[in-house]
Amino acid sequence: MTTLVIGANGQIGRQLCALAREAGEPIRAMIREPAQQPWFEERGIETVIADLEGDFTHVFDGCDQVLFTAGSGPHTGPDKTLLIDLYGAIRAVDVAREHGLSRFLMVSAMRAEDPQAAPEKLRPYMAAKFAADAYLRASGLPYVILKPGRLTDEPATERVAASLEETGGTNTVSRGNVAHALLHLVKAGGLVDREFVLLDGQRPIAEVLA
Amino acid sequence: MTTLVIGANGQIGRQLCALAREAGEPIRAMIREPAQQPWFEERGIETVIADLEGDFTHVFDGCDQVLFTAGSGPHTGPDKTLLIDLYGAIRAVDVAREHGLSRFLMVSAMRAEDPQAAPEKLRPYMAAKFAADAYLRASGLPYVILKPGRLTDEPATERVAASLEETGGTNTVSRGNVAHALLHLVKAGGLVDREFVLLDGQRPIAEVLA
Repeated sequence: MTTLVIGANGQIGRQLCALAREAGEPIRAMIREPAQQPWFEERGIETVIADLEGDFTHVFDGCDQVLFTAGSGPHTGPDKTLLIDLYGAIRAVDVAREHGLSRFLMVSAMRAEDPQAAPEKLRPYMAAKFAADAYLRASGLPYVILKPGRLTDEPATERVAASLEETGGTNTVSRGNVAHALLHLVKAGGLVDREFVLLDGQRPIAEVLA
Repeated sequence: MTTLVIGANGQIGRQLCALAREAGEPIRAMIREPAQQPWFEERGIETVIADLEGDFTHVFDGCDQVLFTAGSGPHTGPDKTLLIDLYGAIRAVDVAREHGLSRFLMVSAMRAEDPQAAPEKLRPYMAAKFAADAYLRASGLPYVILKPGRLTDEPATERVAASLEETGGTNTVSRGNVAHALLHLVKAGGLVDREFVLLDGQRPIAEVLA
């Protein structure tokens, strides 16, 4: 069961790739530039070079599922939000479906469920994530959508929560915890058509993403 | 059969409203500001003031179908493209469905079918239109999607074409012809789940949008 990781060179992507490699989980890291390759090769992680704004259909051959963690991020220009976070995700869904992949794991965002409830400057980004998630749900592909809260660089605790109610309002989650959660999802092949908010918390990942 | 026109104060919206009024077709023009009201009132067109970025659910009461011709346009900032062209359209689809409206008429764009084939600077806009169209198709609402070519301010000829093959490559259409085509769609209630490219051409509108 090989997982194509789209956005492998991102902050979450790299941590996930390293964890998957340690766990012996077969992955293929999609990266944009040859200059990004050494970091992965040093760790024995297979890479494939392709551009999410170009033709990347060939990189799906031989993969069983796809993990989409690419993102221009909420702080880049909204033109890239449209081209990467929205349309890159849409095309990845289409290509995954055309290739008959078994599952699509999407990294979304907690506020994507209701962009109007997000702080004003994040709303365009959340609108893009809302639409990408909706496209995936309607695609017919089995999916899991993970919706982390506000990302931090705190150390991974491997203890998480599923809602603001559970955390008492704390809305953050470390990228390390997101990476651990993604590894869990990559391995939990039976989990389909599910959506999870993810925050730093007190419970084991396997319990929250059950 | 009352049609809610979202984006009524736009260049196409105003022409459509004037044509519909002349034809005795019941419409309700959704506009953003009271200052936009006199133009409509002088012509005896009902208006309702609401913001596509705010709560506009109340304006659907008593309407039978909706025509979405709002657009920040390809030349405004892509943050507004995300909030208006994409998420505004998505919310309008949701509200129309919740209100049980009979049909959703969407003004899209010719290149929205394949954003990567569009000129680079238009791609973010086309990605937004692609996703909005996809959301409408998957919504379960009966729909018509109209995909005009590049808009001009030439006079309306009421003669159109349905493809670049038909026009020999000419990719333009006047806003006046788009407005006439929309009036035809507003009246042609039996037309559902159809998509039409619209260009200036040689054939009557009723023949091309049949």
